[in-house]
Amino acid sequence: MPTIGIADTTFARYNMGAAAIDELKNSISAKLIRVTVPGIKDLPVASKKLLEEQNCDIVIALGMPGKQPQDKICAHEASQGIMMAQLMTNKHIIEVFVHEDEGKDDQELKFLMEQRSREHAQNVVKMLTRPEKMIQEAGTGQREGFADANPL
Amino acid sequence: MPTIGIADTTFARYNMGAAAIDELKNSISAKLIRVTVPGIKDLPVASKKLLEEQNCDIVIALGMPGKQPQDKICAHEASQGIMMAQLMTNKHIIEVFVHEDEGKDDQELKFLMEQRSREHAQNVVKMLTRPEKMIQEAGTGQREGFADANPL
Amino acid sequence: MPTIGIADTTFARYNMGAAAIDELKNSISAKLIRVTVPGIKDLPVASKKLLEEQNCDIVIALGMPGKQPQDKICAHEASQGIMMAQLMTNKHIIEVFVHEDEGKDDQELKFLMEQRSREHAQNVVKMLTRPEKMIQEAGTGQREGFADANPL
Amino acid sequence: MPTIGIADTTFARYNMGAAAIDELKNSISAKLIRVTVPGIKDLPVASKKLLEEQNCDIVIALGMPGKQPQDKICAHEASQGIMMAQLMTNKHIIEVFVHEDEGKDDQELKFLMEQRSREHAQNVVKMLTRPEKMIQEAGTGQREGFADANPL
Amino acid sequence: MPTIGIADTTFARYNMGAAAIDELKNSISAKLIRVTVPGIKDLPVASKKLLEEQNCDIVIALGMPGKQPQDKICAHEASQGIMMAQLMTNKHIIEVFVHEDEGKDDQELKFLMEQRSREHAQNVVKMLTRPEKMIQEAGTGQREGFADANPL
Repeated sequence: MPTIGIADTTFARYNMGAAAIDELKNSISAKLIRVTVPGIKDLPVASKKLLEEQNCDIVIALGMPGKQPQDKICAHEASQGIMMAQLMTNKHIIEVFVHEDEGKDDQELKFLMEQRSREHAQNVVKMLTRPEKMIQEAGTGQREGFADANPL
Repeated sequence: MPTIGIADTTFARYNMGAAAIDELKNSISAKLIRVTVPGIKDLPVASKKLLEEQNCDIVIALGMPGKQPQDKICAHEASQGIMMAQLMTNKHIIEVFVHEDEGKDDQELKFLMEQRSREHAQNVVKMLTRPEKMIQEAGTGQREGFADANPL
Repeated sequence: MPTIGIADTTFARYNMGAAAIDELKNSISAKLIRVTVPGIKDLPVASKKLLEEQNCDIVIALGMPGKQPQDKICAHEASQGIMMAQLMTNKHIIEVFVHEDEGKDDQELKFLMEQRSREHAQNVVKMLTRPEKMIQEAGTGQREGFADANPL
Repeated sequence: MPTIGIADTTFARYNMGAAAIDELKNSISAKLIRVTVPGIKDLPVASKKLLEEQNCDIVIALGMPGKQPQDKICAHEASQGIMMAQLMTNKHIIEVFVHEDEGKDDQELKFLMEQRSREHAQNVVKMLTRPEKMIQEAGTGQREGFADANPL
Repeated sequence: MPTIGIADTTFARYNMGAAAIDELKNSISAKLIRVTVPGIKDLPVASKKLLEEQNCDIVIALGMPGKQPQDKICAHEASQGIMMAQLMTNKHIIEVFVHEDEGKDDQELKFLMEQRSREHAQNVVKMLTRPEKMIQEAGTGQREGFADANPL
């Protein structure tokens, strides 16, 4: 049985971790370990600790970068950290970021945060249990949250 | 008893380290070790030394990036360094940066530097002593310094 | 017989991995191992795992960054990760990115994704089997996908 | 007796290394080891070699980024390298950069390069010999080269 | 006798590696090892392999970033990789980049690519054989390719 880590933040305006956990519970028999940190820049080391100290096989890291220019820089730094944490552990961390300005209003933002969390949780499940399914979907314009793009 | 490192700078225009230490002393029984460096770009290695050479369990790194464009780049470099220091040690460094242009005047800037230092010191306490409390606050729009955001 | 890794994404709108594999099969006797991940930011660790856990001699990592500003940042982060993965393994990862806005329409984009994947697959073959051929082409303005540039 | 490394460049238009060395000689009894490299992007590994191969306790790295946009990117890359070199060695490298466009004319630029080199040499001395003095100056708006800022 | 690595690209529009090698052969008795890769982002790991697997004492890495905005980002990523490769090996990699838009026309671009390659080859020679000569030139405004700047 795989162990899946879920890392999210108190900064986000929606409980992305709960959405991901609900989706995972409905889709896979796995041990789930959750940790919540203040902001997205705390996610990389939290994820790495889940991978190395809690023996997680994979982590899903969820956050909502704010809409200010400085928030965009923070998101970049957090993403760089998540990238490096994966390279240091040879394990995947699926980053689920929904920028606060991606939704045209609060309702769409909430929908996106819920939907993208769930669809990436499905990616985690596929990567763990059916990697050949990923190959079948190669180049098909999959999107998480919004509608898929059309393949060329 | 945990050991908490506090790193701050002589560049900042307010004694953020003192504010964090005062808050920590009122909230937790811990050994506190403080170091002060010239600027924010000296904080990452100072924090890493606190974690590795002084056996701190966590570090709070406080600084005030200046308002010039070059200062913003320095802040980005410092944040990248703090990110990497965490990944190299598997320990959290809570970054508390207040940009000099975040306050509309000196009075608000001073308030922010004091308040954000204290609120992040509370995050440190929670992460050390009650991590389950962090999970309860997941997705609730917590902010440090300014008012919290409304959850969706 | 060398082992070549192929990593691509479900996000891309064209099956770049299939194009690269077809080209490789026609050009070299090698063991090919393919993995598909959700997006370009998942490529670095996927490539590193191919190099280290699957003993690949080289990896070709293919992706299509989207056209939004945020997508450009993601591409930058993915490229930084691919760079670091190479430095950590002392092996080459040939990055094949076709930005969604590189083609003036869907037809040109499709052509580019097919052509660049194939030409970089040829680079992989040359690097593995005839590195002296690369030296002969030094400074000759080689391009992958579009027409070559003229040497000075 | 501490060992202090001094790294500077042939690109700079003023002998910053000489200024730092003069200041150090007047302020501390230490072994000084100097190396000069072509440009600022050669400073990080030069500094790391001073720390690891010459057993320096600290390094002061001095350079003058040019005024073109590309020079600013080089300065960013150099700073990232200096950051990483510190994290890999757990030792401080005090970065002294004076951007060529910081001075309103050649005279002010020269003054800045001399003054900032000397003031950061004093920081090196303080960090080595009186770290508690740094704590006393925490949050007091210290600046190197230009006038100090007023504390809030 | 030192071993010098030369890494260049097929993307460049001028044979920079040949220019560097010609200059080195006229200036120093050394073993020269050359490798050519597709583009500048392949230079960092190629250089690191020269340093670690071919026992080079130093590497000169030559490339011509293109003139498109995306090319500038690639150059930045390549430079970050070259920086990291140096820090991981404690050896210098002299980066010789000539941006395609640095020359006002093809003739000046060709001149720059030839001249900068040769002048940096001379830097390599000086760093290997007469490091004290570098110290004598500290702060004298040395430039490679274009005319030197005037010291202050």
